[in-house]
Amino acid sequence: MKLATLRNGRPDGHLVIVSRDLSRFASAGRIAPNLQAALDDWDRCAPILRAVSDQLDNNEIAGMRFVPSEALAPIPRAFQWIDGAGYMVHLDRVRSLKGSRDAELQDQRPLLYQGASDSLTGPTAPIVVPEGDLAIDFEAEVAVVTAHVPMMPSKEEATAAIRLIGICNDVSLRRLVADDLQNGFGFFHAKPSTSFGPVFVTPDELGENWRDNRVHLKVRSHVNKSLYGQPNAGIDMRFDFADLIVEAARTRELGTGTIIGSGTVANAHEEILPIRGNGIGFSCIVEARTMEKIKIGAPRTPFLKPGDRVRIEAVDENGRSVFGAIEQDVTLLAR
Amino acid sequence: MKLATLRNGRPDGHLVIVSRDLSRFASAGRIAPNLQAALDDWDRCAPILRAVSDQLDNNEIAGMRFVPSEALAPIPRAFQWIDGAGYMVHLDRVRSLKGSRDAELQDQRPLLYQGASDSLTGPTAPIVVPEGDLAIDFEAEVAVVTAHVPMMPSKEEATAAIRLIGICNDVSLRRLVADDLQNGFGFFHAKPSTSFGPVFVTPDELGENWRDNRVHLKVRSHVNKSLYGQPNAGIDMRFDFADLIVEAARTRELGTGTIIGSGTVANAHEEILPIRGNGIGFSCIVEARTMEKIKIGAPRTPFLKPGDRVRIEAVDENGRSVFGAIEQDVTLLAR
Repeated sequence: MKLATLRNGRPDGHLVIVSRDLSRFASAGRIAPNLQAALDDWDRCAPILRAVSDQLDNNEIAGMRFVPSEALAPIPRAFQWIDGAGYMVHLDRVRSLKGSRDAELQDQRPLLYQGASDSLTGPTAPIVVPEGDLAIDFEAEVAVVTAHVPMMPSKEEATAAIRLIGICNDVSLRRLVADDLQNGFGFFHAKPSTSFGPVFVTPDELGENWRDNRVHLKVRSHVNKSLYGQPNAGIDMRFDFADLIVEAARTRELGTGTIIGSGTVANAHEEILPIRGNGIGFSCIVEARTMEKIKIGAPRTPFLKPGDRVRIEAVDENGRSVFGAIEQDVTLLAR
Repeated sequence: MKLATLRNGRPDGHLVIVSRDLSRFASAGRIAPNLQAALDDWDRCAPILRAVSDQLDNNEIAGMRFVPSEALAPIPRAFQWIDGAGYMVHLDRVRSLKGSRDAELQDQRPLLYQGASDSLTGPTAPIVVPEGDLAIDFEAEVAVVTAHVPMMPSKEEATAAIRLIGICNDVSLRRLVADDLQNGFGFFHAKPSTSFGPVFVTPDELGENWRDNRVHLKVRSHVNKSLYGQPNAGIDMRFDFADLIVEAARTRELGTGTIIGSGTVANAHEEILPIRGNGIGFSCIVEARTMEKIKIGAPRTPFLKPGDRVRIEAVDENGRSVFGAIEQDVTLLAR
């Protein structure tokens, strides 16, 4: 089943069940007031939500038209957002950046950072920046939402704790990364609010495209009208989602509704932008620029600026959008 | 007024109003189901909570006996926990630690790290560690809870956003700090669940002891029966709470109910442990050990081990405990 959260004037929004083709929704308000509440009481809620989902997909109930611009992030404020670094190719490509460390150090255990989860932004909300020249970048990722995870879980416990799957844009202000990392306390200002696709889905919704704790879908990113990348999130993921959960819970439990990102999806290749229709490309701009330095001596793909639009979606083998699209315009903070 | 959250089997607990002397409570269940909900609707809730608080303090209602061991953290799971580094003395004393940076770099703007907020622990909950030899330490701090803060607030807006004040124990696993910081992504495993005192209080509750956005109270820390420190949180705080909020909101808004810690409370002095009755001492063990290295050539105060007890409270000029005590035993994870 697919779940979304519609704007209702309250910070946690209103939970709805969305049809498989993302065209219609039915309210879940009588089952749980919001998605966190459903996760808190999942054993009771999940079967009822699934029954409504089946009725919607079988046209036994009509539902209402689902409009992504009415959607908040599926969990508009979460108790935890952790971003992992599942793809070593991404770390390899950015390790030359000032303040970053050699990727070899991270080959044994996945890197994680604790992100802000108080204000997760919706699929069509603007990316609001305080200044235009902060080397604004997107990072296209897949993410999972967990049940409660005890401290030091087994990989089996971690696997069983995966409740929902979605996509996100880990917005990054590259100009501030070096400053954040050099002061030694990790990312803070360089990682403002993360954005999420319109729906989170249960793993079964992906069929064979969810296996080995990886999402075997192409994650397609556009900037304005240009295709920047479409790597497969199931390929080159060195640490799978259960690995990321095990690592996150080494010294503490994880609360119900913890969201863990895959890190920027990246497949190994030697391309530069623009890519052709069957090219792989990149899930963030800084990787494209690194490859340009290597191939043509200097970066030429600009970072985002106010007015630019980023579009991210995950598509299956038939080109169908599984989670709907993140489609955000970069805008300057109004003051 | 003073607010606490009692255990009721639900993750967010049950909101209660506690008498000024911490002896009695009255349920706030009819006003708001939990503290986050009260903060979300503060303009409506605060006057009603305050009316009950007045009745309780004037003995117009009897209330029930308040037992701190029944209390969860006032916000048992928050949408955001940020820890600042308000006291340069603390940074000075720990900068010799492997992986830490020179304190001079941090003199212009306060350092902040994004902490985990999904599982904040209550005042008498054990400090559960996966292994006993992780150089387990406490960090006694004061903290504030904010209203929603817009991106790039003025210092006045930041000041006005401070809703509640409390104390916390930012538990630290020193053995894992170097590893966390050297990988470049900041604290993660070294900072497990943070613990909070039994009550959060409104700023007016502190009277003249809340001024200049600082908490002018002694923060007293014991390990087992020994007094380890009692520095005044109003002294040597280089960055006040409004400064910390302004810094935290440089590139993003802060959601309602964001908790921001002061950093380890530290006053300048040349003492080593044991301290006399009027000594200042330390709010964490690693500072005591650093001073021992300087004064006697080697550290001798051990880190915490399973079975040890940490007690932290803030006391006013009459020796009265303002927020109640954090009193935690270190225990090994049962497996």
